[in-house]
Amino acid sequence: MTVGIVGLGLIGGSMAKAVKSRTDCRVLGFDRDAASRDCALREGACDGILDSESLGDCELVLVALWPGAAADFICENAERFAPGSLVSDLCGVKDYVCDRVRESVAGRDFTFIGAHPMAGREVSGYDSALENLFDGASMLLTPFADTPRGEVTRLTDFFLALGFAQVVETTPGEHDRVIAYTSQLAHIVSSAYVKSPTAEEHHGFSAGSYRDMTRVARLNEELWTELFLENRAPLKAELDGLIARLSDFSQALGANDAGTLCGLLREGREIKERIDAEHD
Amino acid sequence: MTVGIVGLGLIGGSMAKAVKSRTDCRVLGFDRDAASRDCALREGACDGILDSESLGDCELVLVALWPGAAADFICENAERFAPGSLVSDLCGVKDYVCDRVRESVAGRDFTFIGAHPMAGREVSGYDSALENLFDGASMLLTPFADTPRGEVTRLTDFFLALGFAQVVETTPGEHDRVIAYTSQLAHIVSSAYVKSPTAEEHHGFSAGSYRDMTRVARLNEELWTELFLENRAPLKAELDGLIARLSDFSQALGANDAGTLCGLLREGREIKERIDAEHD
Repeated sequence: MTVGIVGLGLIGGSMAKAVKSRTDCRVLGFDRDAASRDCALREGACDGILDSESLGDCELVLVALWPGAAADFICENAERFAPGSLVSDLCGVKDYVCDRVRESVAGRDFTFIGAHPMAGREVSGYDSALENLFDGASMLLTPFADTPRGEVTRLTDFFLALGFAQVVETTPGEHDRVIAYTSQLAHIVSSAYVKSPTAEEHHGFSAGSYRDMTRVARLNEELWTELFLENRAPLKAELDGLIARLSDFSQALGANDAGTLCGLLREGREIKERIDAEHD
Repeated sequence: MTVGIVGLGLIGGSMAKAVKSRTDCRVLGFDRDAASRDCALREGACDGILDSESLGDCELVLVALWPGAAADFICENAERFAPGSLVSDLCGVKDYVCDRVRESVAGRDFTFIGAHPMAGREVSGYDSALENLFDGASMLLTPFADTPRGEVTRLTDFFLALGFAQVVETTPGEHDRVIAYTSQLAHIVSSAYVKSPTAEEHHGFSAGSYRDMTRVARLNEELWTELFLENRAPLKAELDGLIARLSDFSQALGANDAGTLCGLLREGREIKERIDAEHD
């Protein structure tokens, strides 16, 4: 099978490396950055360059661009995808991308399925791409209600072969609502956390909890701004919920109210234990 | 040297194990829980039981109780510590403990130095104690201005021998101000984070950032309530600062303001990169 990969950054580059090392697929790759393209070819992560002509040779096309650019690419190339082929974006928001792509897919002889690999690093670009980035991770798929089941199965099997531990099917809306909490909110908290003036003094005074809280503050602000604004409503709801819960703590502290404070902490501990017990 | 350890929970138990495995000191231990005492004796983490009589045999006494109980213990036993001995608490707040102990120490022939090992686990009790809990960690010491330098050096050398990577000297007030941010605030955020109703749905939709944000929500709420209330002012200041910064994000999201959002994220990324570069 020939797999086309559009965008050879952290995610697309890792996909190319994983496909080449774990399957016998041929990989055609494209990146607007010539150095990334050349490096991917030299390292054998790609067998050739993907262009508007060879796009039609691909049974599977993975579009690893930022959401706006990914939707643009799929819409603009709708006529060029091979009949019977599968096309997926790999973006972190799904409602925005799937909504935009849905119309350009209608009536075409290829299948689009939104996908979001739950893996990343605090560094970006092809140089940071890893063959094993997706090992043990979860892959989220957001097929439309009328997407042929066989195509969902075909894509699922492909991702499992790459090293993903599980492929979870959901809707674009559900995806965005949960991701707003599990990933996007964490990036906002981390960024806000590290901006305390006290952060400069942490050295020698910190252990795992500071490290965990601030790890993902090292992000690409332009990409995350786009992701946040394409998922504004769920993200703002989660953020405002967190602010309200933090304000409860602040109020209890201000009132020197041990009973309330202890109750707030107990509630969090019990939820954490229950959630962990359900899945460990 | 004979080391007395009061309280054989996670911290005291790990101290006992580290002292026995990394030094040739004799360890006398006490815990109000008979099972922990017996287990520590059976495992060789203690050579004998510490009581009000054998307390006077110890050249070093480490008090690994909660802050209120630790201050009580030191004040109540001020007459029993051996002349020339060193006494340290191992609590997570220092102003409260050091203030309370200062008077009972005055005029006595032993030296008290507040200490706080920057290591922990999300589980507690002797059963969770680890010989290597402190390996590579930072130990914070808060001597008084008139504490003999030789005693600070003696305690520093002892902790380095146990596996600590560094011993950092600071004042109780500085300690509490920085710890409010690096540790206490992280525990509040983690507890507030996991209480989103969406947390129940995270399975399959999460990766490292959710795990990092919620890890320390599994805490002993009674201990942390005590720690928080003994460090109220610095903690409330940090918490309110974080809430204000999160509110800036919420406002930018609400206004669909890409420029502001991107600027907020850039600021966090630059701070994180600068801080990491200073110490990596």
